[in-house]
Amino acid sequence: MTEQASETVEIRGHLIDSGVLSRVLDDIREYDGDYDMERVDIGHEKTDTSYARLAIRAADEDALQRLLMRLQTRGVNLVQPGEVVVSPATQAGVFPDGFYSTTNLDTKVRIDGHWVTVENPEMDCGLVVDRSGPTRVYTLAMSDVAVGMEVVCGASGVKVKTPAPISGEDGGFAFMESEVSSEKPQALLVRQVADQMREAKRNGKRVLWVGGPGVVHTGAAPAMVAIVNAGFVDVLFAGNALATHDIESALYGTSLGVDLAIGKGVEHGHEHHIRALNTIRKEGSIAAAVESGVLTSGIMHALVTHQKAFVLVGSVRDDGPLPDVYTDVIDGQRAMRAQLRDVGFCLMVATMLHSVATGNILPASVPLVCVDINPATVTKLADRGSSQAQGIVTDVGLFLEQLAMELVPAYRPG
Amino acid sequence: MTEQASETVEIRGHLIDSGVLSRVLDDIREYDGDYDMERVDIGHEKTDTSYARLAIRAADEDALQRLLMRLQTRGVNLVQPGEVVVSPATQAGVFPDGFYSTTNLDTKVRIDGHWVTVENPEMDCGLVVDRSGPTRVYTLAMSDVAVGMEVVCGASGVKVKTPAPISGEDGGFAFMESEVSSEKPQALLVRQVADQMREAKRNGKRVLWVGGPGVVHTGAAPAMVAIVNAGFVDVLFAGNALATHDIESALYGTSLGVDLAIGKGVEHGHEHHIRALNTIRKEGSIAAAVESGVLTSGIMHALVTHQKAFVLVGSVRDDGPLPDVYTDVIDGQRAMRAQLRDVGFCLMVATMLHSVATGNILPASVPLVCVDINPATVTKLADRGSSQAQGIVTDVGLFLEQLAMELVPAYRPG
Amino acid sequence: MTEQASETVEIRGHLIDSGVLSRVLDDIREYDGDYDMERVDIGHEKTDTSYARLAIRAADEDALQRLLMRLQTRGVNLVQPGEVVVSPATQAGVFPDGFYSTTNLDTKVRIDGHWVTVENPEMDCGLVVDRSGPTRVYTLAMSDVAVGMEVVCGASGVKVKTPAPISGEDGGFAFMESEVSSEKPQALLVRQVADQMREAKRNGKRVLWVGGPGVVHTGAAPAMVAIVNAGFVDVLFAGNALATHDIESALYGTSLGVDLAIGKGVEHGHEHHIRALNTIRKEGSIAAAVESGVLTSGIMHALVTHQKAFVLVGSVRDDGPLPDVYTDVIDGQRAMRAQLRDVGFCLMVATMLHSVATGNILPASVPLVCVDINPATVTKLADRGSSQAQGIVTDVGLFLEQLAMELVPAYRPG
Amino acid sequence: MTEQASETVEIRGHLIDSGVLSRVLDDIREYDGDYDMERVDIGHEKTDTSYARLAIRAADEDALQRLLMRLQTRGVNLVQPGEVVVSPATQAGVFPDGFYSTTNLDTKVRIDGHWVTVENPEMDCGLVVDRSGPTRVYTLAMSDVAVGMEVVCGASGVKVKTPAPISGEDGGFAFMESEVSSEKPQALLVRQVADQMREAKRNGKRVLWVGGPGVVHTGAAPAMVAIVNAGFVDVLFAGNALATHDIESALYGTSLGVDLAIGKGVEHGHEHHIRALNTIRKEGSIAAAVESGVLTSGIMHALVTHQKAFVLVGSVRDDGPLPDVYTDVIDGQRAMRAQLRDVGFCLMVATMLHSVATGNILPASVPLVCVDINPATVTKLADRGSSQAQGIVTDVGLFLEQLAMELVPAYRPG
Repeated sequence: MTEQASETVEIRGHLIDSGVLSRVLDDIREYDGDYDMERVDIGHEKTDTSYARLAIRAADEDALQRLLMRLQTRGVNLVQPGEVVVSPATQAGVFPDGFYSTTNLDTKVRIDGHWVTVENPEMDCGLVVDRSGPTRVYTLAMSDVAVGMEVVCGASGVKVKTPAPISGEDGGFAFMESEVSSEKPQALLVRQVADQMREAKRNGKRVLWVGGPGVVHTGAAPAMVAIVNAGFVDVLFAGNALATHDIESALYGTSLGVDLAIGKGVEHGHEHHIRALNTIRKEGSIAAAVESGVLTSGIMHALVTHQKAFVLVGSVRDDGPLPDVYTDVIDGQRAMRAQLRDVGFCLMVATMLHSVATGNILPASVPLVCVDINPATVTKLADRGSSQAQGIVTDVGLFLEQLAMELVPAYRPG
Repeated sequence: MTEQASETVEIRGHLIDSGVLSRVLDDIREYDGDYDMERVDIGHEKTDTSYARLAIRAADEDALQRLLMRLQTRGVNLVQPGEVVVSPATQAGVFPDGFYSTTNLDTKVRIDGHWVTVENPEMDCGLVVDRSGPTRVYTLAMSDVAVGMEVVCGASGVKVKTPAPISGEDGGFAFMESEVSSEKPQALLVRQVADQMREAKRNGKRVLWVGGPGVVHTGAAPAMVAIVNAGFVDVLFAGNALATHDIESALYGTSLGVDLAIGKGVEHGHEHHIRALNTIRKEGSIAAAVESGVLTSGIMHALVTHQKAFVLVGSVRDDGPLPDVYTDVIDGQRAMRAQLRDVGFCLMVATMLHSVATGNILPASVPLVCVDINPATVTKLADRGSSQAQGIVTDVGLFLEQLAMELVPAYRPG
Repeated sequence: MTEQASETVEIRGHLIDSGVLSRVLDDIREYDGDYDMERVDIGHEKTDTSYARLAIRAADEDALQRLLMRLQTRGVNLVQPGEVVVSPATQAGVFPDGFYSTTNLDTKVRIDGHWVTVENPEMDCGLVVDRSGPTRVYTLAMSDVAVGMEVVCGASGVKVKTPAPISGEDGGFAFMESEVSSEKPQALLVRQVADQMREAKRNGKRVLWVGGPGVVHTGAAPAMVAIVNAGFVDVLFAGNALATHDIESALYGTSLGVDLAIGKGVEHGHEHHIRALNTIRKEGSIAAAVESGVLTSGIMHALVTHQKAFVLVGSVRDDGPLPDVYTDVIDGQRAMRAQLRDVGFCLMVATMLHSVATGNILPASVPLVCVDINPATVTKLADRGSSQAQGIVTDVGLFLEQLAMELVPAYRPG
Repeated sequence: MTEQASETVEIRGHLIDSGVLSRVLDDIREYDGDYDMERVDIGHEKTDTSYARLAIRAADEDALQRLLMRLQTRGVNLVQPGEVVVSPATQAGVFPDGFYSTTNLDTKVRIDGHWVTVENPEMDCGLVVDRSGPTRVYTLAMSDVAVGMEVVCGASGVKVKTPAPISGEDGGFAFMESEVSSEKPQALLVRQVADQMREAKRNGKRVLWVGGPGVVHTGAAPAMVAIVNAGFVDVLFAGNALATHDIESALYGTSLGVDLAIGKGVEHGHEHHIRALNTIRKEGSIAAAVESGVLTSGIMHALVTHQKAFVLVGSVRDDGPLPDVYTDVIDGQRAMRAQLRDVGFCLMVATMLHSVATGNILPASVPLVCVDINPATVTKLADRGSSQAQGIVTDVGLFLEQLAMELVPAYRPG
């Protein structure tokens, strides 16, 4: 990019605490602009305000004006604001091209060398200059534009002021920031996960999966089996439920209910469940059941067949459990830790309990993606310190179908 | 309570399986009525229908009539329906006291000894008898009442019929009752939706889509464009947001944020949004923007190019809005109603507001599938009376990708 | 299907209102069985109970027995129950094939011509006949099976009874069926819970609480302490987190973050947490820390001081844990079972894991209220078979404040 | 506070973009420490890393060590790290007092003048120095501590390194930040809202309410009536639903269903709803219905009686609507704007549509609190630019009960 238009801007306030400066830099990036940080004064005392001055650049004057208008929503102003530029409206209900799109901040406009305060600030409107009497500037909604109105265009001559933070005696409540964000469509996210897995394998690393019973309930077991067969699951951490539902499905061919976000699952009284547990307990272990020909399909069967590791750790709500399940959770944690060597990528799917448990013991250097239809699972993981976690809020069944199609060229949904 | 008014009513159908009889008894209790169960015939075979006859009682005639109208929403009719009673409207926009409040079931009215079929059944409206030519009876919204219209009052002479359960060859999907249930994995659900669309087209019916901006945010616009091009969208109901985000994406190539279940959307201050609105307002309409070469891609472009209908109805949070948007919601409802003829299947995607609005006016005989990552949307639809609604709680972006692959053999995700 | 095995069964109760009959027919269909409805008597008055008798058929004797066991979870019994059939266990921790899988309903078993009442009904267990002294029949978890135990097989000779609906003077609250419904404002619900607790105490019964860390995060610990002091908590089931956060708050006076519905909790890296664990481990137990004067306030302190029981069962995500925590989940389940005697009311607050675990082992005859801001928790409980569960979706902090004001006249929010 | 202990620390990385520096300052505040920002170098180019050096102070050496350990979780290190300090464990399963609580970052420990890399980093553990052979340092879980192990204490001699950001070719996915956070228990939040309302009234400002039908469904109408009567509602923005359900409740005394988070509301077919609409349409307006004695209680009655303003704006899903409802949404927006003069505080309760619409037109200088049981509503508001919004995720009914008790001393829940 050869930028041709540039301006110097400044901002003052609690830039670091509030994250405003970080968002300003994001905006510049998002608008394909560039910047030099000319000066940053950060308050020494925690009550001091900070100041930043940046030279910003964009591809052309039009792009620069739009970036300037964007930055004003953050409280950023031109160092040398100049005079306002106006243009008449030529159609009712339509602003002139390049109109200044307003913020809801206190705004001033420089006209004939004087700053005029904008009446009734409101976001996503235009600014109209009225010189019929003493000069006024007011906010106007697009649908109320009349022909001939003088509308402010570009950011020149416009200045905004961010409000002081609201606070009670002891600091007030926290401001909100929104979360679990992504700038990419879902299909691209699936591809990126596949790429990270392939890269881990190329580097001789192991891929760790952490899964909940939703993998089975959403009908994605065949997709996961295909991924195991293709060598992209080196170790699985799970609980009694994933393994039991997978085995129940393999033994009885039951098509289980979809595990929806609101918690609707397979009914407990469904006696296939308890009967599958009994069958495997009788065999002594999952591997023994594969060996003896009792268990012939499903995720657990695929793991045993390919000699992949799995660590199943129990919880207080378990029935049975399967003989392979660690009923002592501290023993289970130790078994999980013993499987972390050479793990180069971790995918967590549809389980809050085991995802948080894995996040607790995983080094920050291992890339980690958490997929769940429930945003709370993803959020909780990050809150508990696994800051490297990347969250994808989506349908687990469809996600695994698409991941299988990415990783296993021959795979087709059933 | 000494009941003074009583009537004998009957109902026929899958009373036990479907829970209908249980709900009828609940209604009677809730309306402070009482009943004797005079006769119950429950089918011996599981395909047989059942029959129940009840004597119901209420405190007075007025209470009885209201109870009868309530029970008709379940499919309960008077054993001796008698003749319809009408009363003239004396105020515009107001029904006479005691007016019959409609269901969305197939309805007949007995006039002069003959049963007349009610035109365009819709719930929560009134019934108007028009004897100006051959006797007609039609549904009318409250806001469209004119002075002098003959409006049906009370339940006398009115008979409704519940639709037969919707079912495919292997039993179809389960019906939803205030909760979202499915016995099938997601990939199969996508196929069933595709089959229902193909069947509707084979029968010469039109396919109605109802969409929210999530269709664009999840990156599924190319998939929907492919489906429009293939002829599986005959009419779209939406708001200002879907169309604006689609057009913004077409004009500025912005990759919008993923609209997650918890409401994470595109940031408001993003000035592309308001600038896209201004551009289309300048052209005069979406079709004019396509005509003039300003708008060259996206969902709205595809609809205009293929001469498919769309009805955009505004809401109080809209910016702009686009010139095609009905800003008067009652006008918008009328425009939506006018597009319901010959609709044989309806798919609702990622919008609570417009889904409920469409559910309000759609006959119960039109199969209806609602797709949303938020179970609340699906549940709310069923709670409000659209009992034919089938809910799929999944990721909208991945769902539309898979639906496009089903319906358009050549389609591949971007 | 040519059915070869058949039996005649019957059920009595509010079959229509409650939807039970509908669910029985669903079960038969789901198990590939068939039926003739031989007799249905539906009560004429709304307080009358109904009765149904069905001939049911299945492909073979084994399929029939499994269908019979399934139907018993609905309260359906054989018309001619016959004698119980037992088979000896030949492996520790494993039931014999065809074992009777229990419900949580009151159950009787016919042995030598007499009906013997089953001790401690619990779902998803087996029934053991002990003839070493006077004949006893008791429920046993799979993991506790010893070689030689006489285990009931098939449904022959087994009879269950559904509990009468719970109701207050004016009808009580509605029962939950996979969804959360209430016809009463929240303030009234709080009062009804208080009334149920007072009634349990009046009848000499114990009140069981099941709690998650949200009790502490929402600032409700002082309210719960007041309720413990007033004698309305006889036993607490929880995990490591509730106790640790309570103790951390007591030791360090940290004001913890509010635990929102979406999972926002206290940050993991917060080293107070791990330090509090170390302190109690050093003392040897929570009681020892109270004794030595290290722990002087909070919920756990109140329980120790008033000599109330608590059972803490660990999970795989635990740090520490506290020395009182059962790290083996099967041991934990046994400890919970041992505390169920004389429990007359159960309140579950802000925990999915321990609520489901408790629901698994609690007889259906114990009234049970589940309070959570997340509807999924409440729904999941009912889905898993705890059909007596009443759900209240509300803010846990404000709920406990109001409950304390109801139960402890002198209590005022901090 | 007279701080007596101090140290100089430094941090290097993408401090501004990532928000890390902001979180470091938060931590110092939370631990009651203080700081001087001695030096900040922010990269001029966007790919440059930044650097910050701070002098930090705490009340005593112990507090300082704990603050240092906390800051290390962010990647902050001592400028002069010194040598590690170890202390022997004297109890199995228990760390010595003042033990170093680990992060999951790459960690080095300075022993005898050399940096030793810590094996298997894991958070919330301790560090053990093993000099039995060549010196090793490894992470150990609390439960695995053996007597005599040399455990690192304090932050001296410990250095951590944050991982480089994970990124794909085009920037990778966004990192997650958690949201809707509060450090106060709910009861305190209610009081702060009450204080803000009282302050607005003291300053001669008006209080704006924005409400959804949940206000009525949760049984909070009496609480809101009390607040209107006490003068704390100057203007109400709402839709057709709030007013209709309030009036329906006033006219028919129906106790409406609780509007739960999952969207379970009053059933649509409930004909009281449509009948209430008809009654008010007949009267011509809500005020006329109050005047004529038809409407004698409820929220709308209270507003009319006290001559308070309300603006009702319709939506496409409305039945009726009430004659007072603006059916044209642009007219509705204009009517809302006209009521914004002198508004000094705004409370939004249980409505996403009208909250976002109000957020669109409200100046950023007006304090704004949004209360909803659904976190999505709160999040969406902030995402769309209303950055002054403070969110409270709680039960609307209990919140309004407690707010009424705060604002109206005589008020008692019904």
